[in-house]
Amino acid sequence: MTGRFISLEGGEGAGKSTQAARLAAALAARGIDALVTREPGGSEGAEAIRALLMQGSVTRWSPHSEALLFAAARADHVEKRIRPAIGAGTWVICDRFIDSSRAYQGVAGGIDDAAVLALHAFGSRGLLPDRTFVLEVPADQGRARAEVRDGAAADRFAARGDAFHADVAAAFRRFAAQEPERVRLIDASGTPDAVTAALLFELSDLLP
Amino acid sequence: MTGRFISLEGGEGAGKSTQAARLAAALAARGIDALVTREPGGSEGAEAIRALLMQGSVTRWSPHSEALLFAAARADHVEKRIRPAIGAGTWVICDRFIDSSRAYQGVAGGIDDAAVLALHAFGSRGLLPDRTFVLEVPADQGRARAEVRDGAAADRFAARGDAFHADVAAAFRRFAAQEPERVRLIDASGTPDAVTAALLFELSDLLP
Ligand SMILES: Nc1ncnc2c1ncn2[C@@H]1O[C@H](COP(=O)(O)OP(=O)(O)OP(=O)(O)O)[C@@H](O)[C@H]1O
Ligand SMILES: Nc1ncnc2c1ncn2[C@@H]1O[C@H](COP(=O)(O)OP(=O)(O)OP(=O)(O)O)[C@@H](O)[C@H]1O
Ligand SMILES: [Mg+2]
Ligand SMILES: [Mg+2]
Repeated sequence: MTGRFISLEGGEGAGKSTQAARLAAALAARGIDALVTREPGGSEGAEAIRALLMQGSVTRWSPHSEALLFAAARADHVEKRIRPAIGAGTWVICDRFIDSSRAYQGVAGGIDDAAVLALHAFGSRGLLPDRTFVLEVPADQGRARAEVRDGAAADRFAARGDAFHADVAAAFRRFAAQEPERVRLIDASGTPDAVTAALLFELSDLLP
Repeated sequence: MTGRFISLEGGEGAGKSTQAARLAAALAARGIDALVTREPGGSEGAEAIRALLMQGSVTRWSPHSEALLFAAARADHVEKRIRPAIGAGTWVICDRFIDSSRAYQGVAGGIDDAAVLALHAFGSRGLLPDRTFVLEVPADQGRARAEVRDGAAADRFAARGDAFHADVAAAFRRFAAQEPERVRLIDASGTPDAVTAALLFELSDLLP
């Protein structure tokens, strides 16, 4: 039996990494083996590309170079870790995946959604998750959560204004409207327990 | 006036780097400013990507990841160095460019020529050289030249068999047949002086 492939999406501080770990624990309690991984990165080659993407100023890479680098990292991650795990019957929980490229490259870089998807078709044979959860919190709450976690530190993506974060959130909502079966909006403003319960509820049709 | 963009292609040890420098000197003697650059690399970001491509085993990257990385490096190089130079009236002499991706990714990776060109259209708006020289030497002569230069050292691309190098040479000849105005085959088996003279002859229509 092949494993299921789940991705977690949403703005900064929404709780993606927290819920990835909690979801894996909840699956383990049901006897399901799950691999938790993240993007960009998740394999040796992809982590090396991640380092290129995260270092330097916001303008180090043009939007087109950046989109190509994300696609290269994802291709490596999919080939080296995600497909082998799914093929072996392990579930994969991925902290950000193609929808983050669509949202961020689309909004920040002005790259067509069709072009981002074409790069994904080329690099990763268009692999899509069985289910994608978009964790939604009001922008202030996401920022507050990220600040508690990071203190003053901010990476390249964090140094953006309110309009930017609103546009990213709107992009994720558009993906959910376009693909309601795959992409589910989740209210992530509650307690960690409440959010995990919502995820499990929205996964019930995929659980054995 | 915009500068001309020239690329040098061909197998290992054919004399591309040698002729890039000699051609720049010959142009300088005619009062033409030329920038000599190389691929993969040629800009700060692209050199960082080059390091990822050149390190590790031959199988570190899948053909698709590799094609995306080359396209990302080229996009950066074109945007940061080649287009600005041409725009400022400087000639650019590039040691390998898109035709190396077409030949090597096509032959080594089995990637469609159309797909390599689609990545180039996305990353670099399809920029093509005004003229491309394919330096041709018999495989033995290329290997002998590279061995004199490098001793026992061999990089990822060097550790390939005869059939591989023959297929690459055939790919370059195909490009010349498809685009005879842009791509010119040059007999590079003679002395460095003789080869430079052949290049200048095949450039005469572009010289002021
Ligand atoms: N439901 C929650 N209620 C309160 N705090 C939470 C909740 N979920 C996560 N947090 C806290 O908020 C902070 C951000 O959470 P987390 O790192 O999981 O978010 P993220 O979506 O992965 O962020 P980023 O996009 O920056 O990686 C962490 O300190 C985490 O402990
Ligand atoms: N026409 C020539 N006759 C004899 N030797 C040459 C000639 N051109 C170059 N060489 C020598 O051959 C070696 C390889 O030349 P060069 O480095 O220019 O090749 P290249 O095509 O750039 O190779 P690579 O693909 O490995 O970068 C060098 O040692 C160079 O000095
Ligand atoms: Mg996180
Ligand atoms: Mg060389």
